[in-house]
Amino acid sequence: MKILLILGHQRPGSFCHAIAETAREAFRSAGHEVIYHDLYAEGFDPILPNAEIAKEAELSATIARHCREVLDADAYGIVHPNWWAAPPAILKGWLDRVFRQGVVYEFGPQGVIGKLKGKRAIVFTTSNTPRADELRLFGDPLENFWKTCVFGFCGVEDFYRRNFESIIMSTPEQRAGWIEEVRQIVQQRM
Amino acid sequence: MKILLILGHQRPGSFCHAIAETAREAFRSAGHEVIYHDLYAEGFDPILPNAEIAKEAELSATIARHCREVLDADAYGIVHPNWWAAPPAILKGWLDRVFRQGVVYEFGPQGVIGKLKGKRAIVFTTSNTPRADELRLFGDPLENFWKTCVFGFCGVEDFYRRNFESIIMSTPEQRAGWIEEVRQIVQQRM
Repeated sequence: MKILLILGHQRPGSFCHAIAETAREAFRSAGHEVIYHDLYAEGFDPILPNAEIAKEAELSATIARHCREVLDADAYGIVHPNWWAAPPAILKGWLDRVFRQGVVYEFGPQGVIGKLKGKRAIVFTTSNTPRADELRLFGDPLENFWKTCVFGFCGVEDFYRRNFESIIMSTPEQRAGWIEEVRQIVQQRM
Repeated sequence: MKILLILGHQRPGSFCHAIAETAREAFRSAGHEVIYHDLYAEGFDPILPNAEIAKEAELSATIARHCREVLDADAYGIVHPNWWAAPPAILKGWLDRVFRQGVVYEFGPQGVIGKLKGKRAIVFTTSNTPRADELRLFGDPLENFWKTCVFGFCGVEDFYRRNFESIIMSTPEQRAGWIEEVRQIVQQRM
């Protein structure tokens, strides 16, 4: 299978980077081809300009390539920290620009038609808020965001997410265990 | 009062622009001072760099000014379209960069302390999904996002949001009525 793996984190060496690199290796070990984008490292421009709004708009080579990759992928992996109950702007803008009408969804007579060929997604997120507080105070909005509003909307039904927390209070042993868990999740679900 | 009004929409002449301009005039007519940012028009850079993460990081003149404005404001107005159940990346990045620890919130022994001086916020959003579908399919995530995850977290208790939909199916008369509603909401709540 072809896996599209997207990372949105600002610091090389971060725990999110370790997750993404572990996932990439695990995908490859299982025989999959991985297309990998570290959006910060690539200097991805997240600002959707007005000229790109129309369905038939001419796209830059970069955005056209991202759209082709999304369409070609058999499965998707996303890695990012929780910033204000949402992805960092660079990753939000990747959605704004790449998840286009006509590419990932279409409107039909009965409503929205998800157009993603890939039917499986794994999302790894990190945060510092303890799990019970996250659920009680905010309701874990990232679950609804990725599962329902993004991937569900585009026709991806097999969805799995794992949030690791609290990063700031974790020990090296915990983080090593989480990295091993990433490896197992990828192996078991792909 | 000082009102900080932030717009995130890519096209001058849009309905979001009309909302923001109406709100600005209504704030001014009521005797308030308005600090207004059209983030697209200003070319705001939404990418939080690693060098800005630390609480004591040195900030660019632009970000330092945004932080001062947020701290000086007595109330906040936000206007944006619903893109993937969230603000456009440019506005998400304004939060990522300006809503800093030590500026808008702090961690105390009992948990988070909201530091915003302003205690009132109005958020206007626009979307194309009919209201009943939005609630049934997605649960209106923008309400939780702005009310609880952002403004509530920072200590703003007096929160009001109005979503206008469906923009794409609206008539000129409906839009004129909505603009009048924006004027009344600002007058009544500020």
